[in-house]
Amino acid sequence: MSRGEVRKEDAATLEKNLRIISTRIRREGRKVLRDFPITPAQFDVLQTLFFQGEKRMSDISRNLGITKSTTTGLVKRLIDAGFIERRRSERDRRSFIIDISSSGKSLIKKVIDRRVEYLRSVMTEISTEQVISLEQIVSLLLEVMDSKKTAE
Amino acid sequence: MSRGEVRKEDAATLEKNLRIISTRIRREGRKVLRDFPITPAQFDVLQTLFFQGEKRMSDISRNLGITKSTTTGLVKRLIDAGFIERRRSERDRRSFIIDISSSGKSLIKKVIDRRVEYLRSVMTEISTEQVISLEQIVSLLLEVMDSKKTAE
Repeated sequence: MSRGEVRKEDAATLEKNLRIISTRIRREGRKVLRDFPITPAQFDVLQTLFFQGEKRMSDISRNLGITKSTTTGLVKRLIDAGFIERRRSERDRRSFIIDISSSGKSLIKKVIDRRVEYLRSVMTEISTEQVISLEQIVSLLLEVMDSKKTAE
Repeated sequence: MSRGEVRKEDAATLEKNLRIISTRIRREGRKVLRDFPITPAQFDVLQTLFFQGEKRMSDISRNLGITKSTTTGLVKRLIDAGFIERRRSERDRRSFIIDISSSGKSLIKKVIDRRVEYLRSVMTEISTEQVISLEQIVSLLLEVMDSKKTAE
């Protein structure tokens, strides 16, 4: 099954094409945000909480590589807009944690729905055989990435 | 050629898998940044300048959806580290623009190289036929996306 050799230029072309595709899908999804009182930087915080679960302020800063004062500003505006909540940690009652609210989750789901709808509209333009082949190879790529991760 | 109907769940699976693949590649590329005095937020500014060209401070803020004071901080640290430069605009001598430096460009290229190398290592694990098929379908997806963009 193994190919052994892959030319660098082939990998470079695929990297570039996947990067452009991913940017297109991302841009399409973020169009949803125009209808909501949220900036891209605030959305990054929301996304982190959605996919990684509740966090302390300092972990949000570290995760996104932003200063504490920037995080404080982003978090304050997200709380004001009702997308996230601040509460006492269950584990350590002296500290606070930040979590996504149900309205924050519903916003993320709207963005994902928009991405899916866009991808579906693209998929309808290619043949059934190509769609199936695309789905299979993308799953395979992910499997290989997973096995590499385990091997690390 | 056209398929006509694509089930929403198929599009949802593909969206999720492409999103995970894109996150893996991105994470791999950003490992390069560990060796450099640059945070993820600063890297976002650098990436914007690399792919979109020189910008005014206000355009950087708008583009990334961050406040002017956050942008000022990020830009200052990037100038100090030598990754970007601030100079008078050719078009309007009263205003200043921010541009990526040669050392900034070389950092972005290192990140892309790391992404390509990762993808190449993944591609060597699948068969030649699958690699070719992957390359073809990804190009096709991009063509369809391009034609949709033109049609907008």
